[in-house]
Amino acid sequence: MDLHSLFNPTGVAIIGSASEGKLGYVLTHQIVSAGYQGPLFLVNPKGKGALSVPGYRSVAEIGAEVDLAVVASPAPTVPDVLEDCSRAGVKVAVVITAGFSEVGNIEGEEALKEVARRYDIRVVGPNCAGFFNNRLGLHATLEIRPPVGEVALVSQSGALGGAVLAWAEEQGLGFSKFVSYGNRADVGEVDLLAYLAEDPETKVVALYIESVADGRAFLKAVHDFTRRKPLVVIKAGRGQAGRRAALSHTGSMAGTDAVYDAALRQAGALRVETVEEMFDLCKGLVHLPPVKGRRVAIVTNSGGPGVLAADRAETVGLEVAEPSDALKERLSAFLPPYCSLRNPFDLTVEGTEDGYRETLKAVLEEYDAALALDVCPPYLDSAPHARGVCDAAEATGKPVVANFMAGRTVEKALPVLRERSVPDFPTGERAVTVLARLAEYEERKARWRPLPEVPREQRRLPGEEPLLEPEAMAWLRENGIPTLDFRFAATGEEAVEAARDLGYPVVMKVVSPHILHKSDVGGVALNVADDQQALKVFVALQRVAADLDFRGVVVYPMVRGMQEVILGLSRDPQFGPVVLFGLGGIYTEVLHDVALRIAPIDRLEAEEMIREIRAYPLLTGVRGRPACDLETLADVLVRFSRLPFLYPEVAEVDLNPVFISAGGVWVGDVRVIRNKVAGSKGAQGQEAGNREPKKQGG
Amino acid sequence: MDLHSLFNPTGVAIIGSASEGKLGYVLTHQIVSAGYQGPLFLVNPKGKGALSVPGYRSVAEIGAEVDLAVVASPAPTVPDVLEDCSRAGVKVAVVITAGFSEVGNIEGEEALKEVARRYDIRVVGPNCAGFFNNRLGLHATLEIRPPVGEVALVSQSGALGGAVLAWAEEQGLGFSKFVSYGNRADVGEVDLLAYLAEDPETKVVALYIESVADGRAFLKAVHDFTRRKPLVVIKAGRGQAGRRAALSHTGSMAGTDAVYDAALRQAGALRVETVEEMFDLCKGLVHLPPVKGRRVAIVTNSGGPGVLAADRAETVGLEVAEPSDALKERLSAFLPPYCSLRNPFDLTVEGTEDGYRETLKAVLEEYDAALALDVCPPYLDSAPHARGVCDAAEATGKPVVANFMAGRTVEKALPVLRERSVPDFPTGERAVTVLARLAEYEERKARWRPLPEVPREQRRLPGEEPLLEPEAMAWLRENGIPTLDFRFAATGEEAVEAARDLGYPVVMKVVSPHILHKSDVGGVALNVADDQQALKVFVALQRVAADLDFRGVVVYPMVRGMQEVILGLSRDPQFGPVVLFGLGGIYTEVLHDVALRIAPIDRLEAEEMIREIRAYPLLTGVRGRPACDLETLADVLVRFSRLPFLYPEVAEVDLNPVFISAGGVWVGDVRVIRNKVAGSKGAQGQEAGNREPKKQGG
Repeated sequence: MDLHSLFNPTGVAIIGSASEGKLGYVLTHQIVSAGYQGPLFLVNPKGKGALSVPGYRSVAEIGAEVDLAVVASPAPTVPDVLEDCSRAGVKVAVVITAGFSEVGNIEGEEALKEVARRYDIRVVGPNCAGFFNNRLGLHATLEIRPPVGEVALVSQSGALGGAVLAWAEEQGLGFSKFVSYGNRADVGEVDLLAYLAEDPETKVVALYIESVADGRAFLKAVHDFTRRKPLVVIKAGRGQAGRRAALSHTGSMAGTDAVYDAALRQAGALRVETVEEMFDLCKGLVHLPPVKGRRVAIVTNSGGPGVLAADRAETVGLEVAEPSDALKERLSAFLPPYCSLRNPFDLTVEGTEDGYRETLKAVLEEYDAALALDVCPPYLDSAPHARGVCDAAEATGKPVVANFMAGRTVEKALPVLRERSVPDFPTGERAVTVLARLAEYEERKARWRPLPEVPREQRRLPGEEPLLEPEAMAWLRENGIPTLDFRFAATGEEAVEAARDLGYPVVMKVVSPHILHKSDVGGVALNVADDQQALKVFVALQRVAADLDFRGVVVYPMVRGMQEVILGLSRDPQFGPVVLFGLGGIYTEVLHDVALRIAPIDRLEAEEMIREIRAYPLLTGVRGRPACDLETLADVLVRFSRLPFLYPEVAEVDLNPVFISAGGVWVGDVRVIRNKVAGSKGAQGQEAGNREPKKQGG
Repeated sequence: MDLHSLFNPTGVAIIGSASEGKLGYVLTHQIVSAGYQGPLFLVNPKGKGALSVPGYRSVAEIGAEVDLAVVASPAPTVPDVLEDCSRAGVKVAVVITAGFSEVGNIEGEEALKEVARRYDIRVVGPNCAGFFNNRLGLHATLEIRPPVGEVALVSQSGALGGAVLAWAEEQGLGFSKFVSYGNRADVGEVDLLAYLAEDPETKVVALYIESVADGRAFLKAVHDFTRRKPLVVIKAGRGQAGRRAALSHTGSMAGTDAVYDAALRQAGALRVETVEEMFDLCKGLVHLPPVKGRRVAIVTNSGGPGVLAADRAETVGLEVAEPSDALKERLSAFLPPYCSLRNPFDLTVEGTEDGYRETLKAVLEEYDAALALDVCPPYLDSAPHARGVCDAAEATGKPVVANFMAGRTVEKALPVLRERSVPDFPTGERAVTVLARLAEYEERKARWRPLPEVPREQRRLPGEEPLLEPEAMAWLRENGIPTLDFRFAATGEEAVEAARDLGYPVVMKVVSPHILHKSDVGGVALNVADDQQALKVFVALQRVAADLDFRGVVVYPMVRGMQEVILGLSRDPQFGPVVLFGLGGIYTEVLHDVALRIAPIDRLEAEEMIREIRAYPLLTGVRGRPACDLETLADVLVRFSRLPFLYPEVAEVDLNPVFISAGGVWVGDVRVIRNKVAGSKGAQGQEAGNREPKKQGG
């Protein structure tokens, strides 16, 4: 599929009333005023034209090639309009008309889709704010036309898209293309990303979404896209109220925000929270060369703002490193003695054009990027400083961001910076934040690799009923996931034999398909010390499951003093299987210190998950403990993340606790929840196996 | 002391050259251009005047009353100038002249201070950017004159102050007064806050600091100030590089940022990180009525931006609560059926002046504050919407913030909002952040109470040498801090008796003035089970301290399964004694999950500290555990925080672990570090007592 006809049509028909003030007329006016030169036609029942654009009663009547229709006729007419379009060879229709699913008219939207499918016509919308190809002046939207530039804006919300466009000039950002896809009856974010990845006029895409049509397809589309170009994403609905509103607003189901966040990160997108951050980041991405490291130099003529920028730079993960002795020497050769040779480099209020140029040129040999900060007193002219900054940026080819403050004292400097493509930001804090995000983009791009393959082989879980603990443990082992040694024992004698075999002390747990929370019913005995106690415990556990289909006990060696982690699998309604890693217990339940990914994951992703949790130092040997075997842990995470694909019946799995030491990794308990319908995406299922609110070892 | 003569002088002398372009001339020009009407004189060796301002050779020569001097003569002349000023009755001198301690001229600054002291003249500066009283046009600074308003700006950095002033008009904020105090030879933040708290022209103070002269005096000044007016603070030097620069920039010592953060919070200040946040917050504080709760309604004409604002509102601690049924009913009586009756309230693009007015009036009966969000398409006029919003704000008297987007589509709306004092912000996210900070200010103000009294009584620690563990434990008990039961035993027999007395199993630790880290040298035995083992352990511990002045052992009951916390005391170079609370172990060392306060604290502050840590739920009975005795814990924290005042010899104290359960609080181990010089502020001292890297109980 190709959206070429959307952005570069041979002929365009606007379907709607030609009377002044009506939507058809206004759209025509927008396109004509923007200087669009291609063939343009108006279509309405009266065959009326406007603004030198000829009118026709139908698209078929036009007689010239028309491959794009912009539809603004009343909702009930839209299916017929599409049929007419299709007959006349239209390939893409942008349906601006509202009154479909967003107001509960589901049938109307289904009818539209049905016609589109039948006649093989691509539809953008309905209920959208239109689109533009800015370079051509094909401005098929009521929104304000921004300057031409290299950012494409794709917005699920027409109003938000409009606000961004209206703000563009003030923010100093130009746009190449814009699409608002409204109800997403057909064309959505996935198609548009695929197209824009290839579009030579687009360097960066800014995407606003509230939900996606298909999580997996979205993940793949973003991942493909970010290999080539940066993608800045605003995803609304982070909180409770926002999600509530997003649901009522789009009528589509949103996955939980944490899952979106994981997906966007895995796919290499740069998520931002506000429209302001989006503008800042796009400005940086359009104007700066790649930021190839995190060492940043701050060159300023004022201490205070330099300090504030340095504070923020460290907060966002940049390194405000000190200069080498060689660099200090080089700087001291030309800088006056009152200048600071430390980072931030303070030229003081005496800073000059030469000072900025030469200092920046020198530091950029050692640093990856620089912030040029200029606080211009009203009695000085800051334009020469701006020239010095631009000279250095051009001479070194390194990324330089600017913050020239403030108001009318820098009126002459800002045009210099803009003209010469050194992005200026309202504060140094915002400028360094952009550098950090650009560094992040380069890091992710350098690590880009194909998404892990989803296993094609499909297997069946053992049995039909809930998995018993020994079955589930065996199943993990079959799949390469190490567990504690264990024995199943159906009788007291077998239990004693098992315990002797494993070596005392042992842990004994009841096995019953009807007991989920064994600790709660006294179904777990820790620290069983000898034969006599083992026999006694067996009888006690038998009593616990007296009327609950007692099958026997499972016996483990007693584990003490090892670090415990948890691994989890579940299915997200949008993205399908997701995998979770954390330290379990209060780290997960109270501190919410977990890492989440869309499954399956590869080895590198598993390593990132492990490093991502705040409590990571606990695994690397803090407080005199030896480092845990993180190699094996990463392998286990990878294998674990493949289970829901190999076993479509799996709805959820908890491995909790998983013991980890310098010597290896061992699952200590498991709970598997089976889908009611094998392979179904929903997570409704029977609970099987067991779950321990208390940990196994003391 | 009164800074009345600074801001409202009877006569003003400018000391400096009257030649065009020179500092004295430019300052005169600034004041004359600003329309200052009071008596003004120029003083320089030639007695030359300028711009209709008469010239004199000395202040004494003027012959009229002069109580303020603005000094811009060369650094070496300043002491003589001050002497002349003082003889002529000048009360305050603003020394703009640079070239003192900031360039290493310590003697010059001392000479200046000495003259000022001798002649009882108050000095602002030297090396400052001047000051203004905006209403009078007394603009004694080279910086840009902002609109007149109700914010006073006090800035340690002249350049940053200048940048704020230059940006003010664009940001829509007016200023009443400005002072840059440069090297703070005399007048500083404490004096200025005291004056501005009483200044009827100032509603809000914005303060930029890199360091303070005296932490305790600052804490008190801010605390006194915030009882009456809000204080917005930017404190630079949060990170490593920033602090490095702040040090070199001001030549003064900065306390650690976490201590500043605690002090500002305790004193009720609103800390912000950027100049943009400062503007936003000041705008809100100047224009809005008090925000008396956290329930916020978002009224919008566009879904997407409403969702983004709702997301942020929740992130910053506001409640985007759903409306009551009664409110829904009321709204449905006048809103068209396609409007959302949930929060965010979406009027859709059909939203009208009436819609905004009536919806806001209705929701503000139920909510504490509202955000009015308007995304104006280019074909509509947003000014009527702005009028509706302003009408509702005036009718209800409740806080309403606005976000009208964007660019030229809202050119007509913004003046309406500004005129009628409804603050507009560039994004809804920034607008709701302001509401949250204002709610925080009101909450703190409602809880305002005098700072806890510092104990006057001073006692001596036992002995002269490092405190032994049993001594330190006894000392804690004397001071009302409960400890585990313990016995000191000098012989094996005594040890057995002690253990029997306490009940087996017990913990035994070596007592020696030379062993600090007992666990490291095998000086701790856990789980001692019976008499025989106790005797054996005693001998072993004796061997551990064989050449280390072995005194005996201390015996405790063995504690198992209790929650552990830590309490700490240390002395900050700026603020003196600070108290720390955390969960100990990895929570403190790895997760840095601690609460910090300037000591002493009162009961309410202690309760806040306890609630502040992320792991707080662990203390309230998560995962089936009973809630801990937080009442006693708070009492202990209060008593603990008083120790460094009662015992000036105390440099540092660690209580780690402190055991806590539903039944009480017991210190399990203690380390006291004594100051070398009793009562000295520095923390250099001998280490005493003991410290356990490993916890006592299993």
